[in-house]
Order: sequence, then C-alpha cells, then structure tokens
Amino acid sequence: MKIALAQQNFHIGNFEANTQKIIQAIHHSAAQQADLVVFAELSIGGYPSQDFLEFDDFLQRCENSLQRIAAECNTIACIVGTPVRNHLPKGKPLFNAAAFCYQGSIQYFRKALLPNYDVFDEYRYFEPSREFEVLHFKGLKIALTICEDIWDVGNNRLYTVNPMEELIREQPDIMINIAASPFNHKQALTRLEVLRANVNQYKIPLLYVNQVGAQTELLFDGGSLAFNRNGYLAQCLPFFEESIQIIETKSLFDDDLTTDKQQIPEKTALIHDALVMGVRDYFHKMGFSKAILGLSGGIDSAVTLAIAAEALGAANVFGLLMPSQFSSDHSVNDALDLASNLDSPVKTIGIEQLFDTFSNALKDSFNNKPFDVTEENIQARIRGVLLMALSNKFGYILLNTSNKSEAAVGYGTLYGDMNGGLSVLGDVYKTEVFELANYINRHKIIIPVNTIQKPPSAELRPNQKDSDSLPDYAILDAILYQYIEQKKGPDEIILAGFDEKTVNRVLRLVNLNEYKRKQTPPILRVSTKAFGMGRRMPIVAKYLS
Amino acid sequence: MKIALAQQNFHIGNFEANTQKIIQAIHHSAAQQADLVVFAELSIGGYPSQDFLEFDDFLQRCENSLQRIAAECNTIACIVGTPVRNHLPKGKPLFNAAAFCYQGSIQYFRKALLPNYDVFDEYRYFEPSREFEVLHFKGLKIALTICEDIWDVGNNRLYTVNPMEELIREQPDIMINIAASPFNHKQALTRLEVLRANVNQYKIPLLYVNQVGAQTELLFDGGSLAFNRNGYLAQCLPFFEESIQIIETKSLFDDDLTTDKQQIPEKTALIHDALVMGVRDYFHKMGFSKAILGLSGGIDSAVTLAIAAEALGAANVFGLLMPSQFSSDHSVNDALDLASNLDSPVKTIGIEQLFDTFSNALKDSFNNKPFDVTEENIQARIRGVLLMALSNKFGYILLNTSNKSEAAVGYGTLYGDMNGGLSVLGDVYKTEVFELANYINRHKIIIPVNTIQKPPSAELRPNQKDSDSLPDYAILDAILYQYIEQKKGPDEIILAGFDEKTVNRVLRLVNLNEYKRKQTPPILRVSTKAFGMGRRMPIVAKYLS
Repeated sequence: MKIALAQQNFHIGNFEANTQKIIQAIHHSAAQQADLVVFAELSIGGYPSQDFLEFDDFLQRCENSLQRIAAECNTIACIVGTPVRNHLPKGKPLFNAAAFCYQGSIQYFRKALLPNYDVFDEYRYFEPSREFEVLHFKGLKIALTICEDIWDVGNNRLYTVNPMEELIREQPDIMINIAASPFNHKQALTRLEVLRANVNQYKIPLLYVNQVGAQTELLFDGGSLAFNRNGYLAQCLPFFEESIQIIETKSLFDDDLTTDKQQIPEKTALIHDALVMGVRDYFHKMGFSKAILGLSGGIDSAVTLAIAAEALGAANVFGLLMPSQFSSDHSVNDALDLASNLDSPVKTIGIEQLFDTFSNALKDSFNNKPFDVTEENIQARIRGVLLMALSNKFGYILLNTSNKSEAAVGYGTLYGDMNGGLSVLGDVYKTEVFELANYINRHKIIIPVNTIQKPPSAELRPNQKDSDSLPDYAILDAILYQYIEQKKGPDEIILAGFDEKTVNRVLRLVNLNEYKRKQTPPILRVSTKAFGMGRRMPIVAKYLS
Repeated sequence: MKIALAQQNFHIGNFEANTQKIIQAIHHSAAQQADLVVFAELSIGGYPSQDFLEFDDFLQRCENSLQRIAAECNTIACIVGTPVRNHLPKGKPLFNAAAFCYQGSIQYFRKALLPNYDVFDEYRYFEPSREFEVLHFKGLKIALTICEDIWDVGNNRLYTVNPMEELIREQPDIMINIAASPFNHKQALTRLEVLRANVNQYKIPLLYVNQVGAQTELLFDGGSLAFNRNGYLAQCLPFFEESIQIIETKSLFDDDLTTDKQQIPEKTALIHDALVMGVRDYFHKMGFSKAILGLSGGIDSAVTLAIAAEALGAANVFGLLMPSQFSSDHSVNDALDLASNLDSPVKTIGIEQLFDTFSNALKDSFNNKPFDVTEENIQARIRGVLLMALSNKFGYILLNTSNKSEAAVGYGTLYGDMNGGLSVLGDVYKTEVFELANYINRHKIIIPVNTIQKPPSAELRPNQKDSDSLPDYAILDAILYQYIEQKKGPDEIILAGFDEKTVNRVLRLVNLNEYKRKQTPPILRVSTKAFGMGRRMPIVAKYLS
C-alpha cells in the first residue's frame, strides 16, 4: 500500500486556504497512486485554535471543511485532524479527532491523552476518549493515534491509560500517529527516542506526520518520519518546510534497512532555522511584508536583523539608528557595518534633542533629583516612540530585540526597548545569541566582529556595561537555566556550586519582573521552557522575591 | 458542634504571612470554643499559585507550613486547603486537597472535579481524585468537598463522575465545601443557586468557605455561607473583606428558619467594590502605596481616579494633565474639578513642544505624508513617557484607564494610553463605566456632571469624537457582549437584530487587535469573560478578520 505523508503549514481559522491546501494534497497524492494520504493533528482550523474552539460558528466551519475534504476522497482515502463534537450527555463538548474519509463515509478516531502542561491546554477543550479500535483499510489494520497518545512511555506515567497498550490487542499491522508537536531545540531528538520506543515495544512500523510552520510563538518543525518495524528510519521529511512524501508500506517490513536515514542538525542551526521560519510565518500570515528595528551596534539587534533579513529579504528590514550622548562611536559604526554587510536600509535619528525636551518638560516635577534609571528609561522610550512612529506611518512591523537573559531579570525598559510585534530572541539566552552570531557568520562575516567581541552595554549612561549590574552572562544563564528550564529551587542551585548571594538575587529578579513579561510581545519558542503561554506565573506574589 | 468559617485573604507564595494568619485564626476560633475551623481552598501557598506548583521547593514550603499549622490543632481541628503530592506511579504529580488536622494527624480529602476552563488551569497541575470518603469528627459525618466538586449540577454534566453522588451513600450529616471561587458580577447569585441545588438535592446543611482578596486580575469576593438543611441561608460572611464567623451546627437542623439572611448587592455596587478591593490588594501585596494616572477630563480616567482614591486614599493618587493643541478647555477644567472634588494631587505638563520636537525629528523620514493615526499615537506615547518618568522617579504605579469596549476593538495606543501596571476598567464596558460614574456620585458629585454628559473623545485630532470611528457605545457594547461573553458567531448576532456590516466590522476589529491585548497590563476581572488569562486567543489567525 502507498501512503502519502502530507506535512503542511496551516493558518489558524483560515478555512478556505487550509481546505484548499488539503484538497490539493489529496489530488497530488492520488495522482501518484497513493491509497491513503495522512495529514497532521487538527489540520482543519489549525493548531492551536485556542478559544475559537468554544465558538459554535468556528466548529461549524470545521465541519463544513471536513465535508468538502471528504467529498474528494473516492479513489484515495485520507486521515485528517479535526475537532469533533461529543454527543454524550457527560463530558467536555469536543474530542480531538483523526477523521478517516473514504468513499462517502467519515470514521472518527479520538485522542485519549490530552497534554495540559507547558504550552498545551487540550483539556480546556477536549474530553479524553476511552474507546480504542484499529482502523481497517484495504486489508491493513492501522493503530491510529494522535500525538500525545504515544508519548506516555517509560516508568513515570502521566496518564492512567495507554492507547497503544489497548490497540495492540487487536494486532495492528502498522501505527500511524498524527501530531502537532511544537519545536524546541531538544525536541527532534526526544521525538525520535519516544517514537522509536513505541516501535521497539510493539514491533510494527510507525508513520508519523507532524505540522510545520509557525503559529505566533509556537514553531512546528515538521520532521515527519517513517520507521520500519525494526525501529530504523526509512524515510524523513524535512525540517521547517512543507513536504509530501509517499511511502510503500511493504518497504517498512524489509529487514535489510539497519541504519537511520536522518541526521538531526546541531542545536544552533536548528534554533536559527526555527527563528527564520517564525519570523517569516508571522509576517506572511499576518499579511505584513516589512519590518523595522532599532540598531544599537550590539549583538542582539544585529542577530535579529540578520534573521529577519533571511526571513523577509534584507531590503524589507529597516534599521533605525538612534544615538544619544551616551552612544559610543563604535556603536554607530558597527550598526552601519552590519547593514552594509546585509545591504539593508538604515537611517539615523539622534535622540539628544528629544531627551533634552523631555528633561525640560519634567524639570519642575523632578525638582533636581539626580540622574537615575528614570533618565535611562526615557531614552529607551523615546526610541520606542520613534520606531512606532515609522511603523505606523509606513506599515513596518517592529521587531523586538530583547534576549531571554534580559527578559528573565527585567533588564529592559517597558514601553521602550521591550516594544515590538514579535520577539525574535526572547527565548534565546545571551550566551546562545553569541552562538547564533557565529553561526550566521559561518560562511562570511555578516555580523561585525567588533559587535561580537565588545562587552555588552545598554549605553544609557556614561561608560555603562551590562556587567555593572548583572553577573557575567555565562553564570547568569546557567542559573537561569536551572531555575526556568529545570525548575530547581535556590537550595538546589546553590548546592550545584553557584554563589548563594548571586543565586538569590537572580531568582528574586526573575520573580519580581513577572509584571514586565506580562506585557512583552509574543516570543518565538525554541527552548523547553519559554516565557509566554508555556510559563504561567502569578504577578502578585511573594515567593523568592 | 461549633464550626468557625475563616474567610481570609492570602498572599501567593508568602508562606510566613499566610501561615501566621491561619494559626492566628485557629487560636481565635479555639478561644471561642469552636471545635473545628475551616479555611478556603489552597489557603497555604495561595490561589492561583500557577506554575510555582511545579517547583519542588514551593511544595516543600507548603508541606512545612502545613506541619506548623497541624501542630496548633490539638484542642481544635482545622480543615485547610493545600496541594499534596500524588505518590501513585501513574497520574499528575499533585492533588488539590483539603487537609484535616487534629491531634497530631493529617487526613487528606482530594478534589475530584478540576476546572480547566476560562481562568482555571487546575488540570495543568492536579490529578483528579476518584476516591470518596466522608470525614468522621466527634460523631459528625462530614461530606468534605472542594469548590468545583459540587458545581456539576443540572443536566449537562461537564464531568463523568459526581463526588456528592458518591459521598451521599455514606449518609453524611453535613456538607462542607472549601472554595477559591473568583468573582464576577453574576457569580454571587450563580453560587447561591448552585449551592442551594446541592442542599435541596441531599437535604443536609452546607457550610461554604470562600477565599477573599485579589490575586492580580482574579478577585475573590468571599461571601462564605451557611445553609440550613432546608436550603435557607442561616449565616453569611461579608463580601470583599476578611471575616471569621462561628456556626452552631445544631442551628442548621432547625426548621424554623424560612428566609435567607442575605441580600446580594446590585451589579454596579458589586463591580465598584470589587474594583476597589482589586486596586487596594494589588498595591498592598506588591508593596506599593502611590498611584499615578493621566487625567484627560474624560469619564474613564475620572472613574479610575475615584476608585483608586477609595482604595489607596485620595492623597496617594496623583493625576497628571497633559493637554495638547487638540485638548478642549473643558477637558482641563473637568479634570481639575474632579481632582478638587476628591482633594487629590494634580499637575499639568503640556505636550505641544514635545509633539513638535518629535515632528521635527521625524520630518525628514515622513517626507510630507499627511497627518494620520501616527500623529495621534505620538501624542498618546508622549503622555506614556511622561507618566512612566514620574512613575520611575517617585515610585508611583501607573494605573491604566482603558475600558473593555476600547480594549475589545483596539481603540487605544500600544505603549501610550494602554500602559500601566494594572488596568482598573479593562473588564468594564463603556456603558458600564457610565453606570459606575453615577454610582460613585450617589451621595455627592465627585465626577463632574460635564464629564458624564459630554460625548466621549480621545482628543487626538481637531473635533474628534469616539463616534466618528466607532458605533454608538450602546450598540457596540451589545455586540461585544454577544461575541465575547456569549460566544455567538456573526450569523447569530445579526439574527438578533444588529446591522450586518456593523457586526462584521466589530468582530473583525476584536480579532485583529488580539496582538494589542497580548501586551496590556493585567485587567481586574469583573465579568464572566474578561480579557486576560480566561480568554486565550491566537494572535496569528484569520477568523472573522
């Protein structure tokens, strides 16, 4: 049997575009004599549709799309992810389903394990299914599951039932899993291990179809896979792009294959490609084409510009230099060098006069109080006003350039440099920003060497350096990782060898600055724990703070 | 038996303060010969502690607090809400529990129904319990449940099990329910109906203890209750304040009581008191005392000032007037009248020169493009910079004055008038803001009559009125309510009698402006569907937009 794996990029709520894309893939697969084409989890409507799923109107449009899709499935069958109503008198109103469409009938297979941690909210909408049956198609028995359904492997089980343990009793010939499994830079490897654990356990081949494309902060990397019955990778779809590939199921029972047909790119390459896709999809799906950002000569804005240039084309990314009396000459030169290396447009608007006008307007109120963080913030906010003015006048979307280390400890100005429609580096620690810069320079110098080598500075007061008020980034990032990603408490982190005072100060800063992160733009998620929808913290609290 | 109902206001993560408060209430109740004192759901640690619950360090502190509390329960028993670990090999790592502490032992009763809709995320952290047993204490059989456990009444059941249907088999004498049930202006009545439905069903008395106090956007109104076995209210604790009251359980079996000892205040009074508590608690728990806000002479800033003055004292709320060339004389006079009525401090800083300086700085870039929304936003953002400058210099916290109607359709400037640490009116429709203004003026004129009577205007261009670009607020708010609170689709709303073009335009505006609301301050929640944690929408989407 020939099965097409359709790894596609959907647009949430854009039923017309999604439906057409699915139907085209059905036609394309049928033309190649495929018997079945498999689409990802919740392809109709897009994933995550969030609270749109609570609107009857939205669900009706899902149903209409499914009918249109099913009408195309005559010579070929399809499996497509969609929400489906729960008609039982008890339980939540929906199931997360895989619809099997063939020759006028639609058969639903419902998800049993609903992730409700980190970025996932599936229990908010869906009832977990407790019915398990294999799909019979042209003599093949298919164990059809949805994403999380096959992820509860190992000894510490999160769920009290296991769908594959139920389905295997019917002696299926093959497993198919449809997924919407968001990217982080460890995910490709984790996914390979989890999927392979299933093959090794049940000794049958596995076809895995994942979504691709960015949905605001969530990045779906694709990387759909076909395992033969011995657990080797027979076929791999690319990362970060759409692809349809056809598998001959017979080949998956061939014992000759004894190596994997896949190499997972290294961490920094994955992060880079994920961010490029994230920027590109944000603009494309929002209907924007041009970006603007403030260029300081520092590494964060440089890396952001390079990524945006790759995503949107350098000509579409406008860099604004806004030097003050505290800006060094090298800052301006480094920023101009960068733009010149990329051949991207730049302009300079100095902020000294604006700063003086604000100082005068506030002079009476300030009553001779000394220069402090207020004046630093005024500079950052003047820059924010200028960037947003050009954004409003010309339709540029402002890219935020803050990194994860800054966002964590609140080293940034709300309504100033924390502005933006999208945060490109908000889930990238400062030490990783340097790795990205070197990666971007792998073929030729794009980011000026001086930008990479000089000590980081906000340049908001004379001779300021980040290290004046923060620990060295190598130490800061290591502590942040222990706290944010690993959820370690202060005692554990200190025990791991970090200075007690530094640890307590860093954790306090993270918790005190929750209010700032509440108001930041969406952050492209590349780690296992990003600020945003996957990390929900109280603002008013007094814990480690 | 004497049972004390302890309705208290906890501080998330502030273990020392919470534990001391609980122990004091135990001592206070014991001194009044109570046999048992009952605290609200998740009192230890506070509710909602959100992802702090994923930190082992946080859970250890909960356990330490519980041990300290249990050590005080010798002559008196207590029931207190706390997270407790799940030691089973399968399932999520925690239960949401009621700990019964008495004479050295702790017995746990675990929540079975975990709300995971709207503002609730309990399935993110907790495993639902499927074990049910009554609590035996001094000859009384108590059916002890936690909040949602007794809310799944009626025909359309959200859950497949029902704790009281299990517990009633053991023939309990009385029900006790501990809750953390957040306020909305319909909640007091809904709660009364749901609780009474339980009493009417099971024919035994019910004691209900709710949290009180604000946790950022979530407002807990208290209003704890004691029902006699016939479903009449025998005792009611106050709304919006702490209180400990003692019930003689015998009195709950007295059939003489045939009326309710409670009157629920009317909607606008409830909203007013909830907002006052929300502002007061935000400042108190964050350790702030002084607020600042921009005074435009309009009704939103006037109502915000009046509420903040009641919460913090008028002297602690600083009003800044920032007139431009587009401000009318009456705006300035109305704002000054308001401050004078409240005796709150004001200052005026004109923004004309700042606007001109920005215009000059941008002149070359703007290249003679005509005045548009850009220039309107620049004015709003200049005001944002001035307010934040005073906030930074003097430690004022900026109050946001946007209302729900504006927030819904994006009628506001990001990084301008959308700034603030807390949004006071972000869940109050414009038509309700007028109701609040009249309520505030119920005893004497605080908000100038002219502020209430003049047509709303942003005054960002000559002779501007809100009605130039928005439908009348009565129509706008009615459409918004249908869409946001009622989750109706466009066809249903049009069918209800609204103009098709207006409906489509309003819904489109709501969905297009999700990106702005992503970056707004936390909004005090007073409706059944507020912008914020209870309404989760994709930013990148194309649905009705």
